[in-house]
Amino acid sequence: MSLIIVGSMAHDAIETPFGKTDWIVGGAAVYAAYAASNFVQPINQVSIVGYDFTDEELADLERRGVNMEGVKKVADKKSFFWSGKYHMDMNSRDTLVTDLNVLADFDPVLPDSYQGSEFLMLGNGVPALQISVMKQLKERPKLSVLDTMNFWMDTALDDLRHALTMIDVLMVNDSEARQLSGQYSLVKAAKDIQKMGPKYVIIKKGEHGALLFHGDKVFVAPALPLEDVFDPTGAGDTFAGGFIGYIAHTRDVSFENMKTAIIVGSAMASFCVEKFGPTRLKEISKEDIDGRIRQFVDLVNFDIELR
Amino acid sequence: MSLIIVGSMAHDAIETPFGKTDWIVGGAAVYAAYAASNFVQPINQVSIVGYDFTDEELADLERRGVNMEGVKKVADKKSFFWSGKYHMDMNSRDTLVTDLNVLADFDPVLPDSYQGSEFLMLGNGVPALQISVMKQLKERPKLSVLDTMNFWMDTALDDLRHALTMIDVLMVNDSEARQLSGQYSLVKAAKDIQKMGPKYVIIKKGEHGALLFHGDKVFVAPALPLEDVFDPTGAGDTFAGGFIGYIAHTRDVSFENMKTAIIVGSAMASFCVEKFGPTRLKEISKEDIDGRIRQFVDLVNFDIELR
Repeated sequence: MSLIIVGSMAHDAIETPFGKTDWIVGGAAVYAAYAASNFVQPINQVSIVGYDFTDEELADLERRGVNMEGVKKVADKKSFFWSGKYHMDMNSRDTLVTDLNVLADFDPVLPDSYQGSEFLMLGNGVPALQISVMKQLKERPKLSVLDTMNFWMDTALDDLRHALTMIDVLMVNDSEARQLSGQYSLVKAAKDIQKMGPKYVIIKKGEHGALLFHGDKVFVAPALPLEDVFDPTGAGDTFAGGFIGYIAHTRDVSFENMKTAIIVGSAMASFCVEKFGPTRLKEISKEDIDGRIRQFVDLVNFDIELR
Repeated sequence: MSLIIVGSMAHDAIETPFGKTDWIVGGAAVYAAYAASNFVQPINQVSIVGYDFTDEELADLERRGVNMEGVKKVADKKSFFWSGKYHMDMNSRDTLVTDLNVLADFDPVLPDSYQGSEFLMLGNGVPALQISVMKQLKERPKLSVLDTMNFWMDTALDDLRHALTMIDVLMVNDSEARQLSGQYSLVKAAKDIQKMGPKYVIIKKGEHGALLFHGDKVFVAPALPLEDVFDPTGAGDTFAGGFIGYIAHTRDVSFENMKTAIIVGSAMASFCVEKFGPTRLKEISKEDIDGRIRQFVDLVNFDIELR
């Protein structure tokens, strides 16, 4: 039940209406690994870091079963750095700084030991590199999930369209689903995207939850209504990590099991936003996670016996 | 199990990206009555209409058990008229015309035969008139539900605050909940609103579903993902009518039953948007409704046995 996670490992500076941090570990593959490691280990990580990525942060991840063989360490450059500021509604943010640093040289080389991994999570990143990782795999994984964003639709659409033909599950947010398909209706957007390759489409709607589409089937997962969203950074990556982690743990790629996996991802994301960066993800226990998932049951459960 | 519905009975002219109608019956109390009448009859309607409200439209409603004794007919004025145009996203609309006509003189007088009604739905309207209806009732209903909008928060906040002290359930949309409470977080907004009077707060989020808050309890209902929303006019009033209709039918005002009632309301609203005005609401059968509610079960149901 091995899982490959591909994506950035970074440092972030984040400002929200509730506080500010100048330096915290981040990146799609960090959030995804923290979330997934609750369900499956080892995690075969594929990423690149600079000299400033601390041994302590690497050790934290290794203690959670994250295999660093596929993580390139660059001695003379800094790690990818992102800085952003959130507005009051937490749904919009301004990017203040994007320093690619080592990410500009990222050309993932899959270690031999990663061959045969059954599950693949391609975190948001350059579509050509996502394709490269898939091409290096000698066997097609049992399930390949790709996360992407509008930036790649604007700048690398041909590569992205190619990548879509190679994957099973696409994760995008609602505006990205609309942009990719040219359809306003999310039902129609999901149908059109399925024709591009992925047989499963997950549309993330932040505080409004997530939708899973497969053929004529639809599943709607709520987001947990929270008193405060402290820092939404990484919530989408955490959702992805919880989703693929649960799938890899159960080794069940049915639509029914994906529904539960989406609830697991939603629960993990609801922890992520409680503190800065992945802080909260490092703290939570199995009991916390199980309790949160039970909250989701109460949240959507209703008596179906009509009177 | 008698139900009073108070609100406008109107004519609308509607333009959406999918079509245009110059003249169709509408108004909060019309949509609510069509929805509720599937679950409870008679419905004790309180409204006002002009000479142009056709006998055919009144007869359509009467055939569904809508009692017109509390509906004042004005011989020399037209019915309330609203005209609006929806944008592509269907979430925003421009109001083109608002002719109050008879609604300017609306001073509801409750017929004696309506006394003792167990359930009360106060459709969106002037808060002072909503108070007047409540004051005319000799016995407090088993459940009073009030729908309102930002316009009344801007123009009649004191009356609205007074009305809130007299009701059990408030229905508003997300931006209205934020405006009324001054809280961005909907969880905090719902808590603050409960302190203003209503022990139950329903927050409508259109295509993103609805939330029910009561003390520390929360329920999230999805909206049915639709290929096309043909005309959203009246969806909120239809939701309200389905909700109170099911509550009145079951005579059960528990939180658990309200959850089911919200799903019933959501199902009714999902029909409403399929055609112009209340057209679709007039067509659907008990079987259609039961089938739609079963779709909601499939939509949110997931396997809770974590492996």
